[in-house]
Formats: sequence, structure tokens, C-alpha cells
Amino acid sequence: MSRLKPSAFPALKQFVTATSGRDMTKAAYIAVSCGVAMMVVLTIDPAYAAIHYCIDAVLWGCLAFFILEWVIRLRHAFDTGQHRAYIFSFRGLVDAVSALAVPLALLAGVSLRSAWLFGAFWMLKVVPGIPGLRQLRRVLVLESGPLLSVLVIFLLVLFMASVAEFVLEHDVQPAGFGSVPAALWWAVATLTTTGYGDVVPITPLGRIIAAGVMICGLGVFGLWAGILATGFAAETRRDNFLRSWESVRKVPFFATLGPSAVADVTQMLRTIDIPARTTIIRKGQPGDCMYFIANGEVEVDLPGKKVTLGEGAFFGEMALLGNNPRTANITTTRVSQFLVLDLVDFRLLMARHPDLAETIDAEAKRRLQENN
Amino acid sequence: MSRLKPSAFPALKQFVTATSGRDMTKAAYIAVSCGVAMMVVLTIDPAYAAIHYCIDAVLWGCLAFFILEWVIRLRHAFDTGQHRAYIFSFRGLVDAVSALAVPLALLAGVSLRSAWLFGAFWMLKVVPGIPGLRQLRRVLVLESGPLLSVLVIFLLVLFMASVAEFVLEHDVQPAGFGSVPAALWWAVATLTTTGYGDVVPITPLGRIIAAGVMICGLGVFGLWAGILATGFAAETRRDNFLRSWESVRKVPFFATLGPSAVADVTQMLRTIDIPARTTIIRKGQPGDCMYFIANGEVEVDLPGKKVTLGEGAFFGEMALLGNNPRTANITTTRVSQFLVLDLVDFRLLMARHPDLAETIDAEAKRRLQENN
Amino acid sequence: MSRLKPSAFPALKQFVTATSGRDMTKAAYIAVSCGVAMMVVLTIDPAYAAIHYCIDAVLWGCLAFFILEWVIRLRHAFDTGQHRAYIFSFRGLVDAVSALAVPLALLAGVSLRSAWLFGAFWMLKVVPGIPGLRQLRRVLVLESGPLLSVLVIFLLVLFMASVAEFVLEHDVQPAGFGSVPAALWWAVATLTTTGYGDVVPITPLGRIIAAGVMICGLGVFGLWAGILATGFAAETRRDNFLRSWESVRKVPFFATLGPSAVADVTQMLRTIDIPARTTIIRKGQPGDCMYFIANGEVEVDLPGKKVTLGEGAFFGEMALLGNNPRTANITTTRVSQFLVLDLVDFRLLMARHPDLAETIDAEAKRRLQENN
Amino acid sequence: MSRLKPSAFPALKQFVTATSGRDMTKAAYIAVSCGVAMMVVLTIDPAYAAIHYCIDAVLWGCLAFFILEWVIRLRHAFDTGQHRAYIFSFRGLVDAVSALAVPLALLAGVSLRSAWLFGAFWMLKVVPGIPGLRQLRRVLVLESGPLLSVLVIFLLVLFMASVAEFVLEHDVQPAGFGSVPAALWWAVATLTTTGYGDVVPITPLGRIIAAGVMICGLGVFGLWAGILATGFAAETRRDNFLRSWESVRKVPFFATLGPSAVADVTQMLRTIDIPARTTIIRKGQPGDCMYFIANGEVEVDLPGKKVTLGEGAFFGEMALLGNNPRTANITTTRVSQFLVLDLVDFRLLMARHPDLAETIDAEAKRRLQENN
Repeated sequence: MSRLKPSAFPALKQFVTATSGRDMTKAAYIAVSCGVAMMVVLTIDPAYAAIHYCIDAVLWGCLAFFILEWVIRLRHAFDTGQHRAYIFSFRGLVDAVSALAVPLALLAGVSLRSAWLFGAFWMLKVVPGIPGLRQLRRVLVLESGPLLSVLVIFLLVLFMASVAEFVLEHDVQPAGFGSVPAALWWAVATLTTTGYGDVVPITPLGRIIAAGVMICGLGVFGLWAGILATGFAAETRRDNFLRSWESVRKVPFFATLGPSAVADVTQMLRTIDIPARTTIIRKGQPGDCMYFIANGEVEVDLPGKKVTLGEGAFFGEMALLGNNPRTANITTTRVSQFLVLDLVDFRLLMARHPDLAETIDAEAKRRLQENN
Repeated sequence: MSRLKPSAFPALKQFVTATSGRDMTKAAYIAVSCGVAMMVVLTIDPAYAAIHYCIDAVLWGCLAFFILEWVIRLRHAFDTGQHRAYIFSFRGLVDAVSALAVPLALLAGVSLRSAWLFGAFWMLKVVPGIPGLRQLRRVLVLESGPLLSVLVIFLLVLFMASVAEFVLEHDVQPAGFGSVPAALWWAVATLTTTGYGDVVPITPLGRIIAAGVMICGLGVFGLWAGILATGFAAETRRDNFLRSWESVRKVPFFATLGPSAVADVTQMLRTIDIPARTTIIRKGQPGDCMYFIANGEVEVDLPGKKVTLGEGAFFGEMALLGNNPRTANITTTRVSQFLVLDLVDFRLLMARHPDLAETIDAEAKRRLQENN
Repeated sequence: MSRLKPSAFPALKQFVTATSGRDMTKAAYIAVSCGVAMMVVLTIDPAYAAIHYCIDAVLWGCLAFFILEWVIRLRHAFDTGQHRAYIFSFRGLVDAVSALAVPLALLAGVSLRSAWLFGAFWMLKVVPGIPGLRQLRRVLVLESGPLLSVLVIFLLVLFMASVAEFVLEHDVQPAGFGSVPAALWWAVATLTTTGYGDVVPITPLGRIIAAGVMICGLGVFGLWAGILATGFAAETRRDNFLRSWESVRKVPFFATLGPSAVADVTQMLRTIDIPARTTIIRKGQPGDCMYFIANGEVEVDLPGKKVTLGEGAFFGEMALLGNNPRTANITTTRVSQFLVLDLVDFRLLMARHPDLAETIDAEAKRRLQENN
Repeated sequence: MSRLKPSAFPALKQFVTATSGRDMTKAAYIAVSCGVAMMVVLTIDPAYAAIHYCIDAVLWGCLAFFILEWVIRLRHAFDTGQHRAYIFSFRGLVDAVSALAVPLALLAGVSLRSAWLFGAFWMLKVVPGIPGLRQLRRVLVLESGPLLSVLVIFLLVLFMASVAEFVLEHDVQPAGFGSVPAALWWAVATLTTTGYGDVVPITPLGRIIAAGVMICGLGVFGLWAGILATGFAAETRRDNFLRSWESVRKVPFFATLGPSAVADVTQMLRTIDIPARTTIIRKGQPGDCMYFIANGEVEVDLPGKKVTLGEGAFFGEMALLGNNPRTANITTTRVSQFLVLDLVDFRLLMARHPDLAETIDAEAKRRLQENN
């Protein structure tokens, strides 16, 4: 191992740096996709019979990749002294399970074909990369009070209904309602309005109670949706504000504003990230927003010349001022971040801050003269 | 073809002008309806046996219509030099598929009766005409982040549950849970709370996992609804503001307002379009809003005379000022656009802009005197 | 008939006055309940065999009641010259159908037992009395644009999926997917996530499409809920404002406020109607709101004496000022209408309008001294 | 009994004091859990056969506990003269039913095994302890108008559809649609989108009506969710304000604010309760909120010394001011209550109240100097 180090490790370290970031590398995503796809195919008997060498090969490859990834990350974590934090983080645990589940199953004497099913845990590697997960979690945490209440009510209805149906139906249908756990199975399928129909009450009173359970199911749904809608409304506003705040301060255009007006403006702006060489504005199209460059650069494709606008500049205001279509193509030259000001908010902003309106107006006129 | 041009094309060009607008012409809607209806009837064996000449005739007619429509639009697009934009637009693609799918199927050797099933694509012609589609799309785009997160979570639960149920049930129920894809079929029907009941877990542990999946289904529903509710609230406000803004500036009554007050007023108004010869206000009914004419004309049916109010005028304020019923019938003379000010907002507006209140009050008194 | 008039009609006219109001009389509600209940019982063979005389008697009675009601209302409408408005109103049509459906069915030769089933229309008499119906209808009208879009998308998915499943499944399952209408039956049960399970796709591709349909079903649900949530939020605010506005002006306490402050206050208040001899405030309970009397009278049960407060007075402020429990029982003496000011809004109001705060404080001190 | 009193009652009184609070004691929760679990197990024949002595013992124990609890609470209520309030409160009724249901069933001659099923009522003891129940109930009460409307519409659709399906299907399927009550069973399973599939219409017209019922089901869902979402949004805001209000006044930092600003600040703050010896802030983590101590004490773990902050102090502001990570661990020393000011609101607050900003800034600088 010590021999390998000097030559192989620099490349591996590079790999680590790439994979230890917030987003999974493409390689890992590909490995997860291939591995899970093969794991699914493996369970289909004729497919397995036909191509099981191929399936096994891919799965062994994926497993090797995950073990390697885990070992390298572990090593990296020990090197930087953050091994405790890494090992007990969600990421670290998933890496460990992904690497160890299949080998441990094999050691425990499980057949190879069955052991591969533990590859299902590989899917969890996708979780840290889900974009809106943080936002989702915050909503669930902040609204946990009412959500838990609804859950408790859900469980209460579930249990009470099961006992009632057990009492009413167990003589008539000993197969479906022979015990309270069996009745619970019916109750959960009914209360969630899934309704398999494998067990169905047949006594009149049992059906009346079942109808009540179904209507409660609607109510639980409604409450759940209502609570989450409330949480999301607040969270979306907050998230947007946070992302825009830093960028607003980088735009000199807003530098003259007082702190209260900056807060006001920030609530109106939306941040978007756009890759390089993407056309943001297309000539001739109707315009419903203007852009401030928080980060990056754009090229304006004027007739006969190309103008470059850098950090802090704005564009797209002409369409908003006169209800004209866009007058030029505008393309990013590199990955850029923009603050988008929607037509509605543009008007509100112009109304509330006439000085900003004048600055934009003057710039628009200057550009118009220059273009002609 | 060159011979046909001088005589037939002017009429066709007219047709093109009519059909190239934003809304489909009535003819196209009728063709879509008839075509799809016939296509449905065609699949019913006894009906097809009885009237297949009639069905085929209608379908050939529809197909001819769609081919003609496409050819004319294509030609028109080439004439105006916008053929690339047209061909690759959603509209252009739908037109092409509507015109070509059935003939290509026939060329490929499909029987006529089966080929007509490609007429299902004709339905897509309705899509560009759906009224709130733009609004719906904006909500989906703006909320795509959290919606995608929910989708990824949905898929994760789906896969993990399928693998778990496969492990637990495939020995007991080889028919229903014989492979992971088969288990996925059960999982998707359960997680969406559809619950066909064709495949149902029967082992105790399998049922407990199934219960968890159902409850997750409720959660996914709730999250989805919550996210969309948040998006819609913002979008509705925006849409309303945009539609009202232009109209507000046409009403001289609001001309004296400063830009900040205009923005304020715009948020309160709702734009409605009303066809010609429609009675907006009926004498004797209670009134809960007043109207500003943004566009068009109305006739006030006073006892003994008819008064005409044109663009920029307002009416219906008397009922709001004194809580009286409406005092006259008011009817549009042509297609008109109104800005509606609801009773609630009327009061808020009067409270915030006393000068507007005075103008309205003075006008109301003048009218009252005139009427008596 | 002319003979009957002088003696019987005054009583009937009274009856008409009572029943022509906005709410159905209790008699009509009882008739509807009994009639529908009997109609339901009538369809159960053993019950009908046992007590069909009794059932028929009740149903004849209900029918007589509805015919009488209709005739009297018609006559009343003719007397007041509003017969056209009445006959073509929803109420008038329901009255006519309720009175005529069963007799016409009998005339058409339907057996008595089957004819009674037309009594189902009697249920429609309940519709005009539903409390929040106006609000619900306004939401549906105002949000009709996006709701229709969702409906069109729903229908598109329904049709496309049906045709696809018909193509994929009709050879394998001629019973379930033998024609597009049959496939539509499957599609509607799937897209609404009802999932009867009587028809289920079995080909792999058919199942993948079905999974897509189920997920679309979730989406449609979410959109629907989101749109309606947005509409309801706006409507609830509006409804509340309208009901409070008139009452606020009757309370002298708010008379000193400027119009802008009145609008402000109105948004904070909630109107409630309370029947006579009801205890609103119970001594010793914690208080979280105060009341203004918009209409009616209350009795304060102080130790040793009873104080009466009339229109425009307020009470319950002491608990809010000092976080004390309620100090006395307060009971309505007749049907009264109150404006409720919630603790939260009380504090916001006190913060924004210090003069109101002083008035309330002074009154509270005066009362405290008086009580001791 | 009088003999027992002197010795045993002090301990029991202690027990009463502990259990008569708002939250159930842990003992009661354990008793409910064990009791219900045993009651469930009891219904499984093999399990009962194997361990019925054990099950009976646990259940007798639970029953004894609940009887004892009820007797003690009753006595306590009589002692304090609040017996009427207690007996007729929800809590009192549940206590009575929990204690008496099983014994009464035994007295009525029910077998022991069946009598234990009345233990299902024990679950109701959990209800008063559900955290967000008050909030939930307020939403349901305030929105009861529209919710009831939806319920009435739900019932109307249910009945009309049942009668229609009875008429259409009862000749074809006498088993499933033989009477209106039988058809109601189908209708409720369909309208709630449960869809058991045990009874399914098979006539074409019956299926079209069923499709309409399913779509109505979606609508009812959507309305329900929409109404509840609206209610929750208002209620969450209110609840938060109420909880923060009292705490804000305890923080000297806000003492200089006018009442209007206090209301403003209160709307921004969130109250949280944190148990003793919990680390609130961890060194090195990014900070997105600051804390005011409303109640309790925290220890700041600075290098070389420990600083204690008491009621009214604030911390965590440094991370917000400079976007730095947290600079120290901060741990509660006892149960404490904090007011949390989110980053977004922090910025809005600083913008609106520059004087607060200066105070925080000065304190942050002082601390920074002290630490270095």
C-alpha cells in the first residue's frame, strides 16, 4: 500500500476532492443508476438466466466503485481529522452501508443473487444531492407540531375503527377481520383511501363505520395538505430572500438605497444561475422581466457590434419601459448569476423608488441613442 | 399548382390569417371533436360493423382538414420567412403529427381501422388554446425545485418499498411479487393511493411496509398540493396585476394618481372582458362592485332615456356608496373590457385616497340629480 | 277554490311569508328528511314488504306538502308580479320538479314504487340553504380559468391514456380493454386514484403508462387543491370584511376613527351571531378576545347586581389588558350580533391606535372601580 | 377508607397533582400503550392461547391503574369543589369510561376476552395531550362554515348518485345495487376515491355517472384542502404571535421600542423551548438565526473561560452580522425559552429599526474585543 501511494494517490486525491463536494460526481450517479437497474433486472428470472454474467459484472463493478469511494473518503476524513464528523454524518453512514451491505451479506452465507438486493441501499446516495431537500426539511420541522397532531389523530381513528370492525365483522369474515392486526390492515388501506378491496366489511354497521373512516381519510389529507401549504408559503419567501440578499449588495445600482429599501428590493428579486453560452434574451420576443448581473458576464448582440456587460450591470429594462419586444440577443459568456426583476415588481419598484426609475430611464435612453 | 394559385389562394390565405392566430378556429375544434369521437366509436365492434362507412368518411374528412391546415400554415410560414420557428414550435409539431401520423401508419402497412387510432394525436391541437396554461406552466417552472425534490423522494420510496416487498413476498406470492418490476407495479398503485388490489402483500411484515407506503402517499399528496398552492397564490396576484396595469392607465379617473398610488390601485382591480349586448348590471339587484370602462361602451337604461358611457367612464358606484340596490340596467353595446373594483377594495381605496372618494361622490350626486 | 280563499288563505299567506325567505322552514327540512329516508327504505325489499303502507303514507304526505308549497309560492309570485323571476330561478325550478316529478312519472305509467325514486330530487331543496354556498361559488367562478385548464389537461391525459392502453391491451384482455370507451372507464378510475381494480393492465408497457397516469392523478389533485386554496384565502378575507364593515359603523367607539383606520379595524374584526340566553363569557375562564355589541344586548352578572350593556358597548377587554381570567358571566338577552376582536389583533390595534387604547383602558379602570 | 387516608393519601395526592396537570404523566402513557398492545395481541388466537395469563395480568394491571387514577381525580375534584366541571369535561368522561367500560361489560355478562376490547377507549386518554390539538380545533371551528357546505355537497352528490346507480344497475347487479343503502356503500367508496372494487357499475350510463362521482371526489378533496390551508395560514400566524408576545416584553432589549414596533417585532419572532444541557449553537457551523433569552440561562464556551448569559440577553448575532460561522458552543444550563430571530427577519428588522441595529452592532463589537 505504501508503495502504491506516491504514484496512485495524487490522482485519487483529485478524485476525492471532486467527490467530497456537496454534489455527487457524475460517476457516482452513473454507478447508482447502473447498479440499481441491474439489481432490478436480476430479479427477473428469464433475464437473469440469459445475461447473468453481464449483470454480475456490472454489479461487481458498482460495488468496487462504492467501496473505493468509501475508503478514499474515509482516508481523506482521517487526514483532515474530521473522521468522526464524516463517519456519523448521513453521507458517511450511507457510504458505509453501500460499501459493506453486500459483502457482509455474502459473508453471512446469503447467495450471491440475493445479496445483490442489498444494492437497494445504493439509492440512498442520491439523497444528499436532492435540490430542495433542505427547504422541505425545514418545512417539516417547523410544522412538526400540527403534522404530529394529525398523525396522532390518524392513528387514533385507525385503532378505534379496527377494534370496532373486529367486533362487528370477525364472526362473519374470520379470514379478513379475524384479529385486530388484520383489521388494522383493512383500516390503513381505507383511511389512506387506497382501498385495495381485498378485505371489505359486509355488515351494515361495519359499512357505516367504514364510510366514516373514508371521510376521515379525506379530512386527514386535507389537513396535511393545508398545513404543508402554509409552511411552504413562508419557506419559499424566506429562501428567496436569503439567496437574493447577498447578490443585491454586489449590484452598485442598489448601493444608494437605504437599508429599508434594500430589504424591500430583496423581497422582489429572484436569483437564477445560468450556464455559459446560454441565450437569456431573444430578439423580438416579448419581455416580462429585467436582469441585474450579480456574477458573471453577458454579451449583447447589437447590429454590427458586440457589447459586453459585467458584474453589476443591468439589461432587459427597455422592454419593460415601453412594452416593446426585446431589441437584441443577450448571451452569457460564462456561468453567471442574475437577479431577476419581474414586470410586476419592476412597476411597484419604480412607483416606490422614483430615483431608481430615473436612473434606469436615463440608462435606457443612453443605450437607445447609442444603438441608433 | 401554379394554376390553382391565383383563384383559390386568396380565400385560403384568409383562412390562414384566421387560423394562425392564438386561438384555434371553431372549424378546427369541430374537426378535433368529430374526429376523436369517431375514433372512439370505431373501436366498438358492433358500432363499427354497423356504420363503418360513415365513420371512415368523417375521419377522412377530418384528416383532409388537418393536412390542408398544415400545408397552408407551412406555406404561410415560408412566405413570411418564419418557417423554422413554426416547424419547431409545439404548434408546428402538433400540426405535422396530426397531418402525417395516419398516412404514415397506412404506408407502414397498418390496417385502416388501426391507423385511425393515431387520430388521438389530433387532441393535442387543443393544448395551445387552453386558457390558463401559461399561468399553470409558470407555476410549475417556478416551483420546479421543490416539486422535483418530492418526485425524487417519491421514486426513492417506490424503489426501496418494491425491493423490500420483493424480498418478503416473492416466495409466498410468486405471481404478484416475482420480480422487482412486478413489485414496482404494486408500489406505484399503493403510493399513489390508487390501490387496485390485484396484488396485495399478505405477510405481516409486508403489510407493515405497505402501510408505511400508503402513509407516505398521503404525505406526497400533501407536499405536492402545498407547493402548488404556494405557487398559485403568487402567480394569481401577478397575473391580475399585469392584466390590470395597462387598463388602469387608460382610465382618466386614475390619471391624477401618483405612480405609487397607481400600483396600489392596480393591485385592487380585476379585469374582465364582456361580449356585446350583455347586461352587466340589472336593476334592483344588490351591488357589490363598481366598474371602470377600459375599453368599449355601455348603455345605461334610465327611465325615459338611454345614456351612453364610453372609455374611461365608471358606473355602479351608487350601489356601493349607499348600500342601495342597482338603479338601472346597464348593457354593453360592443365587446368591452372593464376594471372591476370590489366592494371591499372600494372601501379600502376610498379610505386611502380621499380625493378619489370625493370625485366619485361628486359624480354620483350629479347623476342622482340628473336622474330625478 | 274561491270559497276556500277568504278563510284558509290568510293562514297560508303567513306560511308563504315564512317559507319564501332565504332559509327553508323547519317543516320543509323535516319533509325532505322524512321523504328521502322513506325513499331509501322503500328500496330494501324486506322492509318494503313489511311496512309499505307506512312508507307510502309518509311519501304521499311529503309529496302533498311539496305540491302545496309550490302552489302557494307560485300564487304568491303571481300576486307580487315576480312569477317570471321565481319560475326560472333555481329555487322555482327545484320546487316545480319536487312537486311534479312523481305525479308525472305515475302518469307515464311508472309503478308507484319506482315513481317514488324521483323523490331524490327533493334533496335539491336543501341547496339554497347551504351556508357557505355563495362563498364557494364565488371561489369557483373567480378561479374558473385555472380550474378549467386543469380539467382540460385531465381530459387530455384521460383520452390519450385510454387510446394507448386500448392499443396495448385489447388483444390480451378483450373483456376489459375491448374498446376505447371501456379503456376510458379504466382511465377515469385510475386518474382519480380511485382504482377499483376490476380492469387492470397486465402488459409491461401498459403498466408503465398506467403508472404515469396515477402520478398525473396526484398532480391533478395537487393543482386542484392549490388553486382552490388560493381562491379561498382571498374570499375568506373579503367575506369577513364585508360582514364586519356595516357593524363597525354602528359602534360609537370606532366613530372617531378616520376612514383609513376604519378599514384597518374592519379587517381585524370577525362578526358572529349568537342566539338569545347564551353565555358568551364564563367567569374564571381565560380570555382571548373582546366583544363589541353591533346589535342586541347582554347582561353582565356582577356580584350582587346585573348590568345591561346595549348596542355599541364593549366587554371582555379586562382579560386582554391584564392577562386575567374572565371576571363575570356575560349572557345575551336576545339574538345579538357581536364584533370579535382577537387577542392578537387587539394588541396590534392598541399599538397602531394609541387613542383607542386609552379609551379602552379608561373604561376598564372605571368598571374595575365600580365592581369593587 | 378513613383509616387508609392519613398514611396513603399524601403520596396519592402528590400523584394527583402530577397527573391532574395538562399533560398526562408518563405512567399513564405507558399504561395506555401496554394496555392497547395487549388488547391487540389478545385478538390473535394463537398468541392468546400461548400467553393469555400474561395478557390478562397486564390488562388487569392497566385497568386497576385507570380505576385508581379516576377515583383519585374524582376525590381531588370533590375536595376542590370542581367536581361538576371535572365530571362533565372531556377528560373526566374519558377517565370514567376508561375505568368503567370493562367492569360494566363483565357485569353485563360479556366474556372476559371480549370485555377487554372495551380497552380501546383507553386510547382516548391520549387526546388531551396532543400538542397542536387546540390549533387544529380552532381552524375547524373558524372554517366550519365552508367545511359544512362542502360536507352537504358531498352528501348530496352521494345520495343523488346512489339513487341514479340503483335505478340503472339494480336489475343487472341485484347483489351490489339491490337497494339504495347498498348503492350508498358503493358511492361513499367511490366519492372518497377509496375504490374497493367490490361493487362496480357495469352499465354504460352507470359508468358515466360513476366517472362524474370520482371527479367530484377530486373536487371535494381540493375544496377541503383549500379551506383548511387558508385556515391554517391564519392560525399559525396568530399562534406564533401569542406565544411570542409575552416573552418579548421580558427582553429589555425591546423595552425601548414603541408599541407599534413591539407588535412588528413580535410577528417576526418564534418561541422555542429547549431542555437543560442542550447545545443550541455549535462552533464552526453556519448561523441563520439569533436568540433572545426569554427565560432560563445559557453558558457560552469561550476559549479559556465560560460566560453565563441570563434572561433578556441575546446571542448568535455575530454570525448574522458578518456571515461568519458560529464562534463558540452555547449550551443551556436549565430548561429555557428563547425567542428566535431568523436571518431574513433580522435583516428586515435592522432595516426598519436602525437604533436596534446599532445596539446589536455595539454589543457584538464589545464581545469581539473581549474574546480576543
